[in-house]
Amino acid sequence: MILMDGKSLSEKILDKVAERVKNLERIPHLAVILVGDDPASKIYVANKKKAAEKVGIKSTIIELPYETEEKYLLDKIEELNDDFDVTGILVQLPLPKHIDKNKVVTAISPKKDVDGFTPENVGKLAIGLEPYFYPATPQGIMMLLDEYGIEIEGKNAVIIGRSNIVGKPMAQMLLRRNATVTICHSYTKEIEEKIKTADILVSAVGKKIVRCKMGYKNSVVIDVGIHRDSYGKVTGDVDFDYVSPSCGYITPTPGGVGPMTIASLMYNASKIY
Amino acid sequence: MILMDGKSLSEKILDKVAERVKNLERIPHLAVILVGDDPASKIYVANKKKAAEKVGIKSTIIELPYETEEKYLLDKIEELNDDFDVTGILVQLPLPKHIDKNKVVTAISPKKDVDGFTPENVGKLAIGLEPYFYPATPQGIMMLLDEYGIEIEGKNAVIIGRSNIVGKPMAQMLLRRNATVTICHSYTKEIEEKIKTADILVSAVGKKIVRCKMGYKNSVVIDVGIHRDSYGKVTGDVDFDYVSPSCGYITPTPGGVGPMTIASLMYNASKIY
Repeated sequence: MILMDGKSLSEKILDKVAERVKNLERIPHLAVILVGDDPASKIYVANKKKAAEKVGIKSTIIELPYETEEKYLLDKIEELNDDFDVTGILVQLPLPKHIDKNKVVTAISPKKDVDGFTPENVGKLAIGLEPYFYPATPQGIMMLLDEYGIEIEGKNAVIIGRSNIVGKPMAQMLLRRNATVTICHSYTKEIEEKIKTADILVSAVGKKIVRCKMGYKNSVVIDVGIHRDSYGKVTGDVDFDYVSPSCGYITPTPGGVGPMTIASLMYNASKIY
Repeated sequence: MILMDGKSLSEKILDKVAERVKNLERIPHLAVILVGDDPASKIYVANKKKAAEKVGIKSTIIELPYETEEKYLLDKIEELNDDFDVTGILVQLPLPKHIDKNKVVTAISPKKDVDGFTPENVGKLAIGLEPYFYPATPQGIMMLLDEYGIEIEGKNAVIIGRSNIVGKPMAQMLLRRNATVTICHSYTKEIEEKIKTADILVSAVGKKIVRCKMGYKNSVVIDVGIHRDSYGKVTGDVDFDYVSPSCGYITPTPGGVGPMTIASLMYNASKIY
C-alpha cells in the first residue's frame, strides 16, 4: 500500500507557481470575499491568504458582516469584475441563508472565477471545451493521480458525493480521461457493492462512510472529506486503518487532498485572462 | 414486459404544445441552420419543420453550402441572436469538418438555444440551476419515464454513451432526480456487468451494443441509438428480441425515443425568453 503524499506534492506545485508568478508581467491579485464569521471559513480564508503570499500572489480579503444584503454582495462582485487590478475572485462558502449562493457564483466573471464554479466554466468542462479554470479540489486530485502514475483510462471510478465543488466536476474530469464513472450519494443503495467495483474511489461526503475492504488490491482511495471525530481528531470519509490494507494507493487525512486543493487553487490564481 | 409508446406520448405532448402556442402573445419562430447536404440531416431538418408547422411554430430553414466559412456561419448566428422575431436557433449537426462545432454552439444566445447545448445552459443544468432549455433527447426520455410512473430516486441508472447531446445531459438529469448514475462508453470494460446492475438503462451509441439479459426483471430499457442494420431495417442499440423478455419496460425502435425527441424539441421551441 502506497501513501499518496499530497503535502509534499503540493509544496512542489507551490514552488512551480511561485516561479511562474515571478515571470509574469503583472502580479496576480486574488480577491477573497468572506461574509459572516464562521470560524472554519475564517481559517480557510486565512490559509488561502497565506498560500497566496507564499507564491507572490497579492490577495485582499473583503470581510462583510453576516447581515450583508445580497444586492450589496452582487454589486461588490460587479465592482471586482470591472477592476483591472483584480485577476481572481473567490467567494468563501457557505454564505448566509438569506443570500442565494447560485446568484452570487453566477455573478462572478468567468475569467476571474478561480474556483471554476460559474455556469460558463462548468458548462465548458462538461462539453469538452477548456474552461478558464478547473475547480480546485478535483484538479488537485488529478495532479495527485498523475504524480503517482495512476492509469485512469478504462478504469472504474466511483465517486461518493455529488457536490458542485467536488463530486460533479470530479466525474467530468475522470470521464474526460476515459474512466467509467459512477456517481453515488445519499440516495444510493448498497453503497458497499459500488465501492467494491472501484479501481479509483473518490469520497467527498464529510462523514465516515468508507468502511469496507476494497474489491481490487491495486485500487486507489482518495479521501476528500475532512471533519473532526468525537475525540476531536481530524479525520476523513475513509476508515483508514480498516481500508488501507486492502488497496494499492490511499491518501492520508490530513496531508492528502487538503494541501493539494490549496496548491491547485494557487495554480488557478496565478492565471491572468 | 411493457412497451413504452413514445409515438403516442409524443402526440399528446405536441397537442399540449400547440395549445400553449395558441395562447402565446406572439408566435415563436425557430431558425434552423443546415450546412451542407447530408441526406440524414436534411430529413431531420424537414421533420423538425413539419413538427413546428403542426404546433403553430413558425420555422425558417437556412440552407448554407458545404463550403460555408466558419466566420460566415458565426455572423449568421449573431444576426439571428439579435433578431427579435427569431425566438429559437438550432444548428443541425454534424457540421462540415472545417467548422469548429464548439465555437458555433457557443455562439448561440443561451436564451435562444433550444437544443440546450451552450456552455451556460449546460453549466446551469450541472450545478442545479434552471437552464433556459434542457437538451431535447434526455428531456424527452424523462417525460417518457414519468408517463410510465418509473421510480428514479435511489435507482441504478446506467448510461451507455457520453455525448453532449444525450449521454452527459442524461446523466445530469437522472442525478438531479436522485438516481445513482454510471456513465459507460467505448473505453468501458465488462460492459455486460454494468448493464446487469441497471434498474434504468439508457443506450445512446448508434450500434447494436445491448445483447444480454437484464439483471432485474423490472428494469427499464431506453434505446436511443438509431441506425439501419445490414438488411436496411431501422433498428436501435438494443437487441430487442433478446433483451425484452428479461426487462419490465422497453422502448421500441422506431416509435420510442425518436418521436419523444421531436416533441421535446417543440416544447423547447415554444418557449420565448
